[in-house]
Amino acid sequence: MTDYVTSEVSGSGKTGKSTAADRWLLRQLYKIVGEPEVGLELWDGYSMRRQHQVAAVKFNDRRALQRLFFKPTYTFGNLYAQGRIEVRGSLIATMETIYRGLAKHANELGETARWLRRKLAYRPRPNSLRRAKDNIQTHYDLGNDFYKLWLDRHYMQYTCGYFPEPDCSLEQAQIAKLELICRKLDLQPGETVVEAGSGWGGLSRYMARHYGVKVRAYNISPSQVEYARRQAQIENLSDVIEYVEDDCRNISGTYDVFVSVGMLEHVGTKNYETLGQTIDRCLSDDGRGFIHTIGQISPRPLNEWIERRIFPGAQPPSLAEMMMIFEPRDLAVVDVENLRPHYAKTLEHWLSRFAANEEEITRMLGNEFVRAWQLYLAGSAAAFTTGGLQLFQVLFKRNGCATLPVTRAHLYRPGLLQACPDEAS
Amino acid sequence: MTDYVTSEVSGSGKTGKSTAADRWLLRQLYKIVGEPEVGLELWDGYSMRRQHQVAAVKFNDRRALQRLFFKPTYTFGNLYAQGRIEVRGSLIATMETIYRGLAKHANELGETARWLRRKLAYRPRPNSLRRAKDNIQTHYDLGNDFYKLWLDRHYMQYTCGYFPEPDCSLEQAQIAKLELICRKLDLQPGETVVEAGSGWGGLSRYMARHYGVKVRAYNISPSQVEYARRQAQIENLSDVIEYVEDDCRNISGTYDVFVSVGMLEHVGTKNYETLGQTIDRCLSDDGRGFIHTIGQISPRPLNEWIERRIFPGAQPPSLAEMMMIFEPRDLAVVDVENLRPHYAKTLEHWLSRFAANEEEITRMLGNEFVRAWQLYLAGSAAAFTTGGLQLFQVLFKRNGCATLPVTRAHLYRPGLLQACPDEAS
Repeated sequence: MTDYVTSEVSGSGKTGKSTAADRWLLRQLYKIVGEPEVGLELWDGYSMRRQHQVAAVKFNDRRALQRLFFKPTYTFGNLYAQGRIEVRGSLIATMETIYRGLAKHANELGETARWLRRKLAYRPRPNSLRRAKDNIQTHYDLGNDFYKLWLDRHYMQYTCGYFPEPDCSLEQAQIAKLELICRKLDLQPGETVVEAGSGWGGLSRYMARHYGVKVRAYNISPSQVEYARRQAQIENLSDVIEYVEDDCRNISGTYDVFVSVGMLEHVGTKNYETLGQTIDRCLSDDGRGFIHTIGQISPRPLNEWIERRIFPGAQPPSLAEMMMIFEPRDLAVVDVENLRPHYAKTLEHWLSRFAANEEEITRMLGNEFVRAWQLYLAGSAAAFTTGGLQLFQVLFKRNGCATLPVTRAHLYRPGLLQACPDEAS
Repeated sequence: MTDYVTSEVSGSGKTGKSTAADRWLLRQLYKIVGEPEVGLELWDGYSMRRQHQVAAVKFNDRRALQRLFFKPTYTFGNLYAQGRIEVRGSLIATMETIYRGLAKHANELGETARWLRRKLAYRPRPNSLRRAKDNIQTHYDLGNDFYKLWLDRHYMQYTCGYFPEPDCSLEQAQIAKLELICRKLDLQPGETVVEAGSGWGGLSRYMARHYGVKVRAYNISPSQVEYARRQAQIENLSDVIEYVEDDCRNISGTYDVFVSVGMLEHVGTKNYETLGQTIDRCLSDDGRGFIHTIGQISPRPLNEWIERRIFPGAQPPSLAEMMMIFEPRDLAVVDVENLRPHYAKTLEHWLSRFAANEEEITRMLGNEFVRAWQLYLAGSAAAFTTGGLQLFQVLFKRNGCATLPVTRAHLYRPGLLQACPDEAS
C-alpha cells in the first residue's frame, strides 16, 4: 500500500461525493485482493493510482463498491456486465494481475483461514440426466449463429486449440488440435469410435474424413446435433457418422475407441464412477480412449460467477480427480499433456473476434450479455495463464491393449500445421 | 480345464509317487491362477499339459506344491529360487501367461471377494529415515561390481531406458533416456539442479556435461555415492556436481530444477506429503521438476515376494497417489508419459546380460540369489507387459513458471538415438 497516489477530482455526483467510509472500504478491498497492480477509481473521480499499474478499475456507484466488498468473486462479474464496474486498459491483463494478487493473498493466509475458505467455498450441485440437459442448453443453445461469429470457420471448435507455431491462425490451431487427437489415438481405417459430447460435430467429421473411421457421437444439445447432422450430409459423411441426441451415460454397443473433448468439465466428479462404468462397458477388450478437458491445479470449485451465470454445473477436475474414472477400472493412463498456454491463446483469438463482432452480438443478445461474455473470456484467459485452470489431454487404454505406438515421436511428424489450406471453408 | 491332457510316468521317487490328493491340489491350484497356458508337472513325472502351452512348471517335491497352494504370490519366488519349482521354456512368457490368468480370475470374482482380497492384501510399512537407509542398502549395496556385469556401460542406469528405435542397444537406450529427461526439463546453462536419489551418478554427470548445469545430488547408499564421486573426479566434473550422502528429506537450499529418477517407488505414499513439502521448499519461485518412477495401474501393493525379498519397502504409486505430492502445493503437472513398454524391453536386455554372466554372479552371490534375481527380472518384465506395473515420467512446475516450451515437439528433434557414439566407454 506504499506505492500508490490518491487524487480527488470534483465528482460527477451520480451517487454523491465519495465519503471517508467509501474510501476506507476501497482500501480494505484493495488489501483483500492482494494489492494488484491496478488503479482504482470511484464514481466522483477519487482515485488510487499504482506507479506501474496495468489498468484502472472504476466503480460507478456506491452500492457496486459495497457489494463487491462483501462477495467479490461472485459480484464482480455481474457488476461488470451491468456496466457498474468499468475497466480501462486490457481486460486480460487486469484479470491476470488480480489473479496474481489473490494467489499472493491466499499464500499469506494461515492454515486455519485456508481451511475455512475451502469449507465455505461454493460447491456446484452434481448433474442429474435432466439437470445436465438444462445446463447444457443454457450455454450451447444460445444459437449457432452466435457461435459462428467468433469460433473457427471450418470445424466450430468451442474447445482449446493447439498452436504448433505461436503465430498460426485460429483455423490452423483448431485443425492442428483435431489432427493431434487423431494421432494420439493412432486411428486406423475401419475402426469404430464413440464420441461423448460431440459439439457441432467437427471432430467426428475430421476423424471420418481423414482417418476413415466410423463414428457414433452422443450430444444432449438439440441445436448442435441438428447442425452436425446437416453438416455431415453436406459433406457426404452421413453413412459413417451417426449423431445420437442422448446423454453419453446411455451409450450402447462396443467400440475400438472412446473419445470426449470438452465434455468432462460439465460432468461433475460425483458422476465419474458412472462415466468410468460407461467407458468400461463400451470399450473393446483392446480398446483405447482419450479425454480432453479443462482442469484445475488442485481440487477446487470453478469461480462461482462463471459456474452460476455462464456455465451452470461446470466443475473442472484436478488430475487426481480424473483418475477416479480410470483407476477403478484398470484403464492405464498412457499420456497426459497440459495445454494450458494454448487455451490462453485460443481465448485471445476468440476475444478479438468477439470484439470485431460486438455490434452484431449486442443486437442479438444485448449489451449486458456482451459485457458478461467478454469478462468470461478474458477472465478465463487470465486463469489459464496465471490462475489455477489447466487443460488436460489424457490418453488411456485397456491394460491388455498393445496397439498404441511406444514413443510419441509420430505426434510431431510434419502436417500438424500444414493441414489448413487443404480444408474447404 | 477341458483342453489339457494328463500323463503318468514312472516317478523319480524323490518324495514318493504323487497321490490322488497331490493331483487334486494341482488341479485346484491351476483353477485359482486362472488356468494359464502353462503345463504343470509333479516330481514323479505326472503331468498336465495344455494344447498351446508356452512353458511347463515343475514341482520337485510335495511340500513345494502344498506351500504354493496356500500362499501362491509369496512362496512362488522362494520355491523357484531354491530350485524346488523349475520352469521349462521362457521365464518371461511363463510369467506373462500367469499374470493374464490371474487378471482373468480376478475379473471373475464377485465384488465381495475382491473387497476381501484388497483388505487382506499385504501392505508394506512406511519408511522412516532409518528404515529407508536399511532398505536401500539391502538392494543397492550388493556391490558395484555386481551391477556393472549387467547394466549399461556408460551411465550404470538401474532404471527404465528409452528406446527411440526398437532395436537400439541398452547403452543407446539409457543415453536416450537421460537426454529425454534433460529435454523435458529444458535445462539451461548455469541453472541449478537438485537430484533426489542419484544412483551411481549417471544423470547428474550427463546433465553437467551436456547441459552446463550445477547439480547437488542426494543419495543414502554409501557405495553408490563413493562410486559417483570417483567417477565425477575422473570426468573432471567435481566442481559442478556435489554428492551428498543424506536422505532427500534433508535437502537444503533453493534450485531452478528438482529431479528424481527411480526413487519415488521406495518412498511410500505415506511420505508423499513430506516429499511435497521438500519440493516446495527447495524449488525457486519459477522452478520446475521431474519425477520418473515405477507405478501401478491402480492403488495396490507390490507383489509381496518382490517387496520382502528383493526391494524392501518398495511401494510404486498409482497416478492419483502421485498427485498427493503436487496438488496440495499448487504444482502444475505439465506432462505425464507412461514408458511401460520401454521397461519391459530394458528388463529383457538386463536378463540376457545377467544370463551371459550367470557363472560369475553365481560365484559372487550364490545360486539361490541368481535364480531369485532372474525370476524378479523376468516377472517384472511380464508385469510391465501384461500386469499392473507402469513407468510414469511426470514433469511439473510452479504455477508461476512460464519458461517451459508450450509444445513437446522439441523432445523429438534429432539426437536422441545418435548420442551414443560420442560417449567414451
